[in-house]
Amino acid sequence: MNPRAFSRRQFLTRTALAAAAGALPAGLAAPISAPAAPRWGRTAQAGRLLDTSTEDASAVRPIDFADVDIEDAFWRPKMLKVATVTLQACIEQTERKSGRIRNFEKAARRTGETHEGIYYDDSDVYKALEAMAYSLKTHPDPALEAKADEWIDKVAAAQLPDGYLNTYFTLRGLDRRWTDMEKHEDYCAGHLIEAAVAYYQTTGKRKLLDVAIRLADHIDDTFRVPNRHWVSGHEEIELALVKLYHLTGNDRYLKLADWYLDQRGRGFGRGVIWTEAEKYGPAYCQDVVPVKQQSKITGHAVRAMYLYTGVADVAAITHDTAYLEAMRTVWEDVVYRNMYLTGGIGSSGANEGFTRDYDLPNTQAYCETCASVGMVFWNQRMALLTGDSKYVDVLERTLYNGALDGLSLSGDRFFYGNPLAALNEEGSGRREWFGTACCPANISRLVASLGSYIYAADAHNLWINLYVGSRTRIAAAGGPIDLRVNTRYPLDGKINITVSAARPIRHTLRLRIPGWARDQAVPGDLYRFDPRQDSAAVQIQVNGKPIRFREEHGYAVLDRVWAPQDVAEINLPMPIRTVRARAEVKANESCIALQRGPVVYCVEAPDNSGNAWNLLVTDGSNFATKETHVLDEQIIALEGRANALVPRGATVEPVPTSVTAIPYYTWANRASTDMQVWLPTRIHSVKINT
Amino acid sequence: MNPRAFSRRQFLTRTALAAAAGALPAGLAAPISAPAAPRWGRTAQAGRLLDTSTEDASAVRPIDFADVDIEDAFWRPKMLKVATVTLQACIEQTERKSGRIRNFEKAARRTGETHEGIYYDDSDVYKALEAMAYSLKTHPDPALEAKADEWIDKVAAAQLPDGYLNTYFTLRGLDRRWTDMEKHEDYCAGHLIEAAVAYYQTTGKRKLLDVAIRLADHIDDTFRVPNRHWVSGHEEIELALVKLYHLTGNDRYLKLADWYLDQRGRGFGRGVIWTEAEKYGPAYCQDVVPVKQQSKITGHAVRAMYLYTGVADVAAITHDTAYLEAMRTVWEDVVYRNMYLTGGIGSSGANEGFTRDYDLPNTQAYCETCASVGMVFWNQRMALLTGDSKYVDVLERTLYNGALDGLSLSGDRFFYGNPLAALNEEGSGRREWFGTACCPANISRLVASLGSYIYAADAHNLWINLYVGSRTRIAAAGGPIDLRVNTRYPLDGKINITVSAARPIRHTLRLRIPGWARDQAVPGDLYRFDPRQDSAAVQIQVNGKPIRFREEHGYAVLDRVWAPQDVAEINLPMPIRTVRARAEVKANESCIALQRGPVVYCVEAPDNSGNAWNLLVTDGSNFATKETHVLDEQIIALEGRANALVPRGATVEPVPTSVTAIPYYTWANRASTDMQVWLPTRIHSVKINT
Repeated sequence: MNPRAFSRRQFLTRTALAAAAGALPAGLAAPISAPAAPRWGRTAQAGRLLDTSTEDASAVRPIDFADVDIEDAFWRPKMLKVATVTLQACIEQTERKSGRIRNFEKAARRTGETHEGIYYDDSDVYKALEAMAYSLKTHPDPALEAKADEWIDKVAAAQLPDGYLNTYFTLRGLDRRWTDMEKHEDYCAGHLIEAAVAYYQTTGKRKLLDVAIRLADHIDDTFRVPNRHWVSGHEEIELALVKLYHLTGNDRYLKLADWYLDQRGRGFGRGVIWTEAEKYGPAYCQDVVPVKQQSKITGHAVRAMYLYTGVADVAAITHDTAYLEAMRTVWEDVVYRNMYLTGGIGSSGANEGFTRDYDLPNTQAYCETCASVGMVFWNQRMALLTGDSKYVDVLERTLYNGALDGLSLSGDRFFYGNPLAALNEEGSGRREWFGTACCPANISRLVASLGSYIYAADAHNLWINLYVGSRTRIAAAGGPIDLRVNTRYPLDGKINITVSAARPIRHTLRLRIPGWARDQAVPGDLYRFDPRQDSAAVQIQVNGKPIRFREEHGYAVLDRVWAPQDVAEINLPMPIRTVRARAEVKANESCIALQRGPVVYCVEAPDNSGNAWNLLVTDGSNFATKETHVLDEQIIALEGRANALVPRGATVEPVPTSVTAIPYYTWANRASTDMQVWLPTRIHSVKINT
Repeated sequence: MNPRAFSRRQFLTRTALAAAAGALPAGLAAPISAPAAPRWGRTAQAGRLLDTSTEDASAVRPIDFADVDIEDAFWRPKMLKVATVTLQACIEQTERKSGRIRNFEKAARRTGETHEGIYYDDSDVYKALEAMAYSLKTHPDPALEAKADEWIDKVAAAQLPDGYLNTYFTLRGLDRRWTDMEKHEDYCAGHLIEAAVAYYQTTGKRKLLDVAIRLADHIDDTFRVPNRHWVSGHEEIELALVKLYHLTGNDRYLKLADWYLDQRGRGFGRGVIWTEAEKYGPAYCQDVVPVKQQSKITGHAVRAMYLYTGVADVAAITHDTAYLEAMRTVWEDVVYRNMYLTGGIGSSGANEGFTRDYDLPNTQAYCETCASVGMVFWNQRMALLTGDSKYVDVLERTLYNGALDGLSLSGDRFFYGNPLAALNEEGSGRREWFGTACCPANISRLVASLGSYIYAADAHNLWINLYVGSRTRIAAAGGPIDLRVNTRYPLDGKINITVSAARPIRHTLRLRIPGWARDQAVPGDLYRFDPRQDSAAVQIQVNGKPIRFREEHGYAVLDRVWAPQDVAEINLPMPIRTVRARAEVKANESCIALQRGPVVYCVEAPDNSGNAWNLLVTDGSNFATKETHVLDEQIIALEGRANALVPRGATVEPVPTSVTAIPYYTWANRASTDMQVWLPTRIHSVKINT
């Protein structure tokens, strides 16, 4: 039995019950009508693109956010903040402080009014809708759902009879639609599709899904069917189309996704404009060579992440080895040579993306929040494709550091870029909003959909990838098993997993042993830990008794018959680790960083006499943990000793001082201040600040 | 008699002579045929736009590069380097290393080939042609002229029968021409017009001029005549059209320039796209309110400078007081609150332009070379409009510092941005070329046309604005006067002016007394000099005898009967000045800078034990001059004493040391190194570099 089909049915049952109880209009709650019935997973079907004989019943699938209840002390408050604060800010900015919703209203009226804002602004509406959809699962909110429905009505009203939907061209002149690849028409369409799929998943309402299907059909008819060359100027639609394929079972969306991938790296001909590729060169848009020949990470980081996520999605279905090989090589290029310790990527603001290998400046680090969100997407797909936990290691690093840093603890301030060092300059702190507002809704939808990244399953195995307090139900061969994970992670590394089934059932639990718990900072050793002082090992107990376990692909394998209320416990020692970068990373020469569990630390001025740049540390071995808070966020701070160079008239003097490091994601919440992740262990020179 | 008419006739005579001698094809050397005969200055003519009754015979006009021979020890080598090195690099990059010339060849063939590069690339060809034109005056070079003629043939062949000329749209699809205001079609047209005017001025050849006239007519017919709303997305054509008007006397070009100015700040309606304005908002393109209501400097700095230059050009003819008042207010906003000490403008790379008042970071200073070139343009126009030397003060500051810094001493390396402080980071130095290659040709055309910025004249007065060794001839009431300026400026402040006429002639010489020689660092006191230690005053002698002189608008007025071979000498004391910024400029708090004459200094690592950031100075009073070289550039260095904070194990110690400062424009010629213009006088904190 297919666990996705199970969980889908479970979900539909809940939806139908809600409809019956009057919570939802019954008509909207109905599943998609046959023959385009929603099909989760990769069930074989006549007329499908795939040679279904190759379908692998044991392939790994994520358990979806809709089937996971988050109870976690770390994440649940953040999800609630997204639901109650961040999404309200998104709504305020989208409806009142910008013309984003007005554009849909104007497009629906078709009376010649002017478009407000930027050509990609529609996508922010869709991304906010997607985040609302995920959030409604964790935090049902009739007012929020009513707002989403109101927006969806406006979106639907703006769609043209032929399925086209883009307020920019509807208002600026439809004669120019589909003439400039930069103009994000397919990018916006992709976000619409993602929102539609998510909203249908949560609410069972299909109005937005129908809009998305009509638009996807329009695009398919415009490009793939006549095979009119076209490249998505900002990738995104590829991964969205795979979602639509999985939901509807209609293989034209999979074919269209694959067709989009195949268009890249073939040049673009007469009669087409592609502004950004012209300005920055085709590498900016990953368009130098066909995707299957790509081996280097280039250009705009968000574009790259969305592309490779889509590639992995298609490859997971088509098993195209050329795609798989390209993904492997490009991934190594990212992780081995071009990733920050925070899991952030894209060091340069000039192209919002990649430069040359090992060019990882700290103050200048761009590390766009959206690129980190994309890293989470891509690494999830790579993990599912390969079953290798190294991808989850990268995912987790990015999630807890580079991505989470994009959202303030208060939920209503954002970073677009996430540098690893900062000088206290006016206006450099977190911002309320951005003209190009991709990041706030992006981090919102990631946090709100966290449930999708915790578990994966096939018919015989359950993978636990992230340790997040939560419940889910899986379909084992012998019947359903309920799982409940209890943990203070990442505050400590003790995780309890209660396995509940009606009767004893044989099933394999695969518990991820993070790279950091195996003394590997990152795959490829761009960053390395200093040797540990202690010798604590990863331990697993079942029902209180230590067990021996074997390890496969970075997972502890617990293959056993689970009795009702069995409790597995994994204990991941979390010593403070000193991190050093490869010598090739000039920016981190003679520096150390601190990490504990998945959390990367920084030194920020408010905890350190107003200065984060004058501290000379040794090797990090004198740091100790201290449980405390940053605002209302419970954290483990690290306290150690250092020499501070303190002004004395015309010189400075070394003053022994205590140093406090806090989790990187918590910085810039108390003020716009100095901060450093990488701390100097020697003085090459000093810069005098006035 | 109108001195411009005189010098024009003089030029035409030279051209005609050259043609008669066979140096030029006679047909091309002919002046423009009547009734569109070229008309310099603002001679009244029936049917002109102007109410010619208001024409002011005494209005100030610049003496043109074509009528000035540069002999200067500082500038002439730079002009020769532009002629022999920089322009060769431009040609190499334009012809071989990019598709810029190929685009014209393809457009001429009309066989459906693809455009290479960016939509504004045509402008680089035109700007290089303009620089070649100026350079051919200073440094005649048949091979360079042949290359220019070859390019001009290719440009002409690419023009469409209706006059339209833009390789991007010709190759990408003419159905989309004039639909996106961002696409620089009028910007490219403006640069074509400027090149055509310059090439006609130097060579008398009119092929490119005819192309430019056809294109200008096409634009006029497309927009102004039917009054179809259109805004120049990147201003430039306005100032170019005024040049075309001055050359041809055809008032439709003046009307078109004025019409372009009048289009701004009126919104843009349905059916038009304007990508950059949408992305960055209308302030980016100076399009928030109509030009006559503008009072704040906003947005993209180069756009702003070109716009206001065009406004001043139109206002000089139409005497529109609303334009004049807007210019005055915007200029004060630039100079009083938003200009670097180097005369550079546009502090932010994000919008390549202006941010908020006093936001003038040093390391992050964008200060695009092209914006400095535009500052020179605009301030020249403002000086001519008003006769006030404060505009020349700003022009000179920008010319000798922010602009000249864009060109390496070798002539083949360039800065796009010109920061006032730099950390030695790999790849941060001068570059061979840029994808967007506006800056190299822009600084080339400025240096090659330096002759146009030295003198201005009306019927009774000669203004000497810049002190550059040179010769020119002016038309005085009693006959021509030959002038020869001899000076080592800016190495010292002694300037000899030999006045030669066949017989004694009464004429007024107006010698600029720079603001820096009157203890004013900049108009508006954004920067101030510390009080001087000495009391040396500006002195003027005629034929060796000191004279008393009166000062008007910042000029020493020498109104006398000039005998043959009279020599006037002005002596501008050049003490080292300590500069401080207003407290509002947080970036320069507790810092000083050094200036001598018009030259701003910096401290660069190669002269200072490899470090420019660890030096604590006092007040600059202990600095002394030393004549020396940077590579083969003769300079006056400044040497003083400071405390260097030098690493000693886990701390730093203050070490008394000598400090050498060099002219800012000479930095980054020996290595990619640390540099600072603003030097700390106290230690607030230190940053440890590893």
